[in-house]
Amino acid sequence: MIISMKRNSSREEIEAVRQRIEDFGYKIHQIQGEERVVIAAVGVGDVTPCLEALEMMPQVEQAVRISAPYKFVSKEFRKEPTRIPIKSFEIGGDEFVVMAGPCSVESESQIMQSAEAVAAAGGKVLRGGAFKPRTSPYDFQGLAEEGLKLLRKAGDATGLAIITEVMSDGDVPLVAEYADILQIGARNMQNFALLKSLGKAGRPIMLKRGLSSTIKELLMSAEYVVAHGNSDVMLCERGIRTFETITRNTCDIVAVPVLREMTHLPVILDPSHATGKRSLVPPLAKAGVAIGADGLIMETHPCPEKAWSDGAQSLDLQQFGKLMRELQPFIGLWGEQRKGG
Amino acid sequence: MIISMKRNSSREEIEAVRQRIEDFGYKIHQIQGEERVVIAAVGVGDVTPCLEALEMMPQVEQAVRISAPYKFVSKEFRKEPTRIPIKSFEIGGDEFVVMAGPCSVESESQIMQSAEAVAAAGGKVLRGGAFKPRTSPYDFQGLAEEGLKLLRKAGDATGLAIITEVMSDGDVPLVAEYADILQIGARNMQNFALLKSLGKAGRPIMLKRGLSSTIKELLMSAEYVVAHGNSDVMLCERGIRTFETITRNTCDIVAVPVLREMTHLPVILDPSHATGKRSLVPPLAKAGVAIGADGLIMETHPCPEKAWSDGAQSLDLQQFGKLMRELQPFIGLWGEQRKGG
Amino acid sequence: MIISMKRNSSREEIEAVRQRIEDFGYKIHQIQGEERVVIAAVGVGDVTPCLEALEMMPQVEQAVRISAPYKFVSKEFRKEPTRIPIKSFEIGGDEFVVMAGPCSVESESQIMQSAEAVAAAGGKVLRGGAFKPRTSPYDFQGLAEEGLKLLRKAGDATGLAIITEVMSDGDVPLVAEYADILQIGARNMQNFALLKSLGKAGRPIMLKRGLSSTIKELLMSAEYVVAHGNSDVMLCERGIRTFETITRNTCDIVAVPVLREMTHLPVILDPSHATGKRSLVPPLAKAGVAIGADGLIMETHPCPEKAWSDGAQSLDLQQFGKLMRELQPFIGLWGEQRKGG
Amino acid sequence: MIISMKRNSSREEIEAVRQRIEDFGYKIHQIQGEERVVIAAVGVGDVTPCLEALEMMPQVEQAVRISAPYKFVSKEFRKEPTRIPIKSFEIGGDEFVVMAGPCSVESESQIMQSAEAVAAAGGKVLRGGAFKPRTSPYDFQGLAEEGLKLLRKAGDATGLAIITEVMSDGDVPLVAEYADILQIGARNMQNFALLKSLGKAGRPIMLKRGLSSTIKELLMSAEYVVAHGNSDVMLCERGIRTFETITRNTCDIVAVPVLREMTHLPVILDPSHATGKRSLVPPLAKAGVAIGADGLIMETHPCPEKAWSDGAQSLDLQQFGKLMRELQPFIGLWGEQRKGG
Repeated sequence: MIISMKRNSSREEIEAVRQRIEDFGYKIHQIQGEERVVIAAVGVGDVTPCLEALEMMPQVEQAVRISAPYKFVSKEFRKEPTRIPIKSFEIGGDEFVVMAGPCSVESESQIMQSAEAVAAAGGKVLRGGAFKPRTSPYDFQGLAEEGLKLLRKAGDATGLAIITEVMSDGDVPLVAEYADILQIGARNMQNFALLKSLGKAGRPIMLKRGLSSTIKELLMSAEYVVAHGNSDVMLCERGIRTFETITRNTCDIVAVPVLREMTHLPVILDPSHATGKRSLVPPLAKAGVAIGADGLIMETHPCPEKAWSDGAQSLDLQQFGKLMRELQPFIGLWGEQRKGG
Repeated sequence: MIISMKRNSSREEIEAVRQRIEDFGYKIHQIQGEERVVIAAVGVGDVTPCLEALEMMPQVEQAVRISAPYKFVSKEFRKEPTRIPIKSFEIGGDEFVVMAGPCSVESESQIMQSAEAVAAAGGKVLRGGAFKPRTSPYDFQGLAEEGLKLLRKAGDATGLAIITEVMSDGDVPLVAEYADILQIGARNMQNFALLKSLGKAGRPIMLKRGLSSTIKELLMSAEYVVAHGNSDVMLCERGIRTFETITRNTCDIVAVPVLREMTHLPVILDPSHATGKRSLVPPLAKAGVAIGADGLIMETHPCPEKAWSDGAQSLDLQQFGKLMRELQPFIGLWGEQRKGG
Repeated sequence: MIISMKRNSSREEIEAVRQRIEDFGYKIHQIQGEERVVIAAVGVGDVTPCLEALEMMPQVEQAVRISAPYKFVSKEFRKEPTRIPIKSFEIGGDEFVVMAGPCSVESESQIMQSAEAVAAAGGKVLRGGAFKPRTSPYDFQGLAEEGLKLLRKAGDATGLAIITEVMSDGDVPLVAEYADILQIGARNMQNFALLKSLGKAGRPIMLKRGLSSTIKELLMSAEYVVAHGNSDVMLCERGIRTFETITRNTCDIVAVPVLREMTHLPVILDPSHATGKRSLVPPLAKAGVAIGADGLIMETHPCPEKAWSDGAQSLDLQQFGKLMRELQPFIGLWGEQRKGG
Repeated sequence: MIISMKRNSSREEIEAVRQRIEDFGYKIHQIQGEERVVIAAVGVGDVTPCLEALEMMPQVEQAVRISAPYKFVSKEFRKEPTRIPIKSFEIGGDEFVVMAGPCSVESESQIMQSAEAVAAAGGKVLRGGAFKPRTSPYDFQGLAEEGLKLLRKAGDATGLAIITEVMSDGDVPLVAEYADILQIGARNMQNFALLKSLGKAGRPIMLKRGLSSTIKELLMSAEYVVAHGNSDVMLCERGIRTFETITRNTCDIVAVPVLREMTHLPVILDPSHATGKRSLVPPLAKAGVAIGADGLIMETHPCPEKAWSDGAQSLDLQQFGKLMRELQPFIGLWGEQRKGG
């Protein structure tokens, strides 16, 4: 069950509702949102009597039965899609959104050139890593705050929004100062301390699916963020780990329509990490539009062969521009479908 | 190395070439095609001296160095795409081909209704199983030859070509008598006795990727068929087995552009088995067109809830017709891309 | 339900029982064993009334409810372990059985040397491939019948039983003529035409688990063999395919106790294919004894570095002898446990 | 390359060595250990000239070429096994170490009963979770510091060492105050912020393999910890995620001998998480001893059916005692092998 309290409910009114729920033997998880308190009640057995009792309490706005283990992110809780406003546009609405940029922020000229190319081609969001999760301690770990500053500068110069990764709960406030969207990487999808800290981040979150995480686990991780107070979460399919090694990962593209059936949150596809190979990015990007994702996130670099990380999967700026033009007719069909369906 | 002999080379001329290759220490695999003899020579070390010696022999038409373990099916051996003629159309050419029909042939009315719907919607090939590979010995095993006869009848009545599965080398001649295309199921992708027997089947082959087979293994299995004399092979991505269980399989859709880089053989996508769920078939079918497959194979049934097998993933005939209409603009973009690229 | 008829039931008596089962709406699968007819009845709903009716029929010896989808191979059908007699010993009984020998039969001296070493070290069964399932059509495909003859000769000279692979239903009679145990390889675990043909093979079967087959699917494939008339089946865990590539396969060693809970069939472990690396075979072999397998099958070769296949995972004859000595104390503990548990 | 400086090298001497390495074009990663400075130098090309130059510098104690991407944890860097002293015993030495206890600390009586049973049966370390990584935000998240206090109390009362999980870099100092060994859970194996913070934790670390992490990635994560200053790391195989769902995970038991070939760090096996089922723990525990692990970590609970988490895979205290007795002869063989090999 999810119980939404009316706005401006008093502490006593909330306590009365909590008491009523506990009388029925359910466990309570309360969220103090900015506008209202929402209570998730979890337990076993038929919830009908409890729901009926709660609905008669005047301070309860809505009490909803939710059978899935994820509550707030489920279609049962909310049918209409979540639209996440970012600067002058929305993710999850009527516009297909492209995010692009280099794997790592390397220098001012590199990120500035990238940002200009992304903006010129019609992208809305600039990506770039300042804190990099690297398998080896000897690999480049990112420019940290210096990278964040360069990203912000490039975003301000071009009007692009900024998305960048945060790797530790301790860094959330710092990254939130510079970025418009906080990215949680695949390796941190079940870093629960980090997920909890995002509840108060004050920024939309893009949560990438873990390398071997199921779709249900992805939704449970999104539930952590929402249940701790931040409902602006988008999900990202970026390929899973399988026995096939010819591509860097295996893109589970069907996760896109599966998620659209299960949740109201927007879904982004990352064809760069899903393939690990430049030549495979354009066909997969087209497929991503055709299958109904809300947007794409792609790696592009002024000079991929000199990139400090992920060069093999980065498009150069010209290839990126060409792809953006080729995507247009697919995005046109996407728009018709969104209106129709 | 692959050495193509000139047409009508004599037995002595072929023997002379074989002898020359063996002098260089390579192992020979000879294919007696309908038109000409082709010799694959496999071994270690630099093949340049041997290639040069062979090219000077008058009866040798062409001698090609091929580094991949698969020879005949590689792009190195043949750059232009293989076009497989079936009745009045081609697979692998300028036309996007849709194959559809029920999982199993159940009755004359079921297969006839299916065929009419497939033909009416613009499909070219009727699918239907007469020999069914079932996990349980207690499940319906197919109508066998009776099913083949019904398929042929439905094909003849509607002008559709017929594709159906063959499960044992002993059944190849029987199935080839009725079908236009022989399908090798995922569980038989490495049934090498069966693959060898297809060399002389006299019918095009659709080889489905095994549940846990790599793309390279798929190409090696295709190589078995071609090396035994049948070069009309198309490949089919139908989903692989991973840790994710929310869909029946995980569609490795990127296999399509990967295969297009590695081989000249056509590639078909099967969105029904890849998802196992009716509602996911249309979005994946669109993505399959967008990513550049040569065709689709889908399950459709007059009454899916009464199907003897795979009902959950079968579209009913109306849904199939609707999907075919929705696919048209994507197929339009596909055609432009084929001309352009 | 499984219904065992009394010995020497007449055709009419059997028909009466079948009729009774069909009256209850169940589907029948009848097995004509050498001694008696057994009927598997499959369907939906509560079987209690049907069981009660059948038990009152005088020609019915036993009627058993079985909830698992595999019937004959389940513990519900038979509690005591199946013991498979081979020459003078049993598999599945009180003796731990080691099978060993080369991957492929290459020559008389190679197989004879191997056989002598296996016998000297206390092995009971000689393995060796005459028909080889190879990923590439250009790899050595085995000596075929010539290999079978050499195996038989080596077996007769040393007193060892012979196990060898059969790859096609058409080859079953030929292989059964020479071998004491027929091996079904991992790639053929769901070659249903082959499985059906084993019902009348007249030889015990060792069924290897497919590369990506679940334990339940392995049991269903065993059920095919038993339901077609051959109840002497042993199962073999030989490693499954996962994302980890540092070993050839990932040994799912826990499959051994899982299978011992689910089925009465013996379970053999193959540490050679499970690891693909010689140095890992001895530790895994010890673990296989400790975890309670009924036997081991291992690759050994007089000169692994010259082996035509699988050299990297083959022990040389001296290493094999050393391992057999090291296994003794573990086999001692195994014996105590079998007696105790 | 790894360059160990002599003890008490001065800042200038270290700087001179760093300068020399940079002259050769290598990237430097310096570790300020408690006793000495160690420098890892990473780069491309033949390192021989640089090694020779460094070895002539008087303040350099040792300069070692290491080809693996992991340096400090590789067998190339150190041949003899790392022995980690914990209270009065060692992990990685001549003694087989058993760690056991409940999944979560629930109450004083629960943890005290568990500790007494573990100590009585011969275990050396008490496990118990105070910070619990749970897929759902609505599941019990652990008693936090209160749980740590109870663990410490139980450890002090019984003489057992304490191992417990830490989930965030911010919590490391707190957990290190109470625990003898810090456990990093599978979901945090690539939480690089956490790994870095362990370098200064002042406690030995048990690093669990991620659900879909390769053995090489496990070693790279261990390298993070060691490269940041803490060389007391033990590794733990606890099962990986595969297509097989009959067990909670698939135990990659061969990882034990693989790791023993690649690293000098101790390796622990966790048969509880690897199987997820109580009845499978004893056979796998025996196999773990037989294959040569340095120890086991297992879940045991005074009343598994009432456990707040992981009840299905927990042994009750009597079963645990019985298993410990059954393990004795295997541990005896283990000890002989350690002495011999």
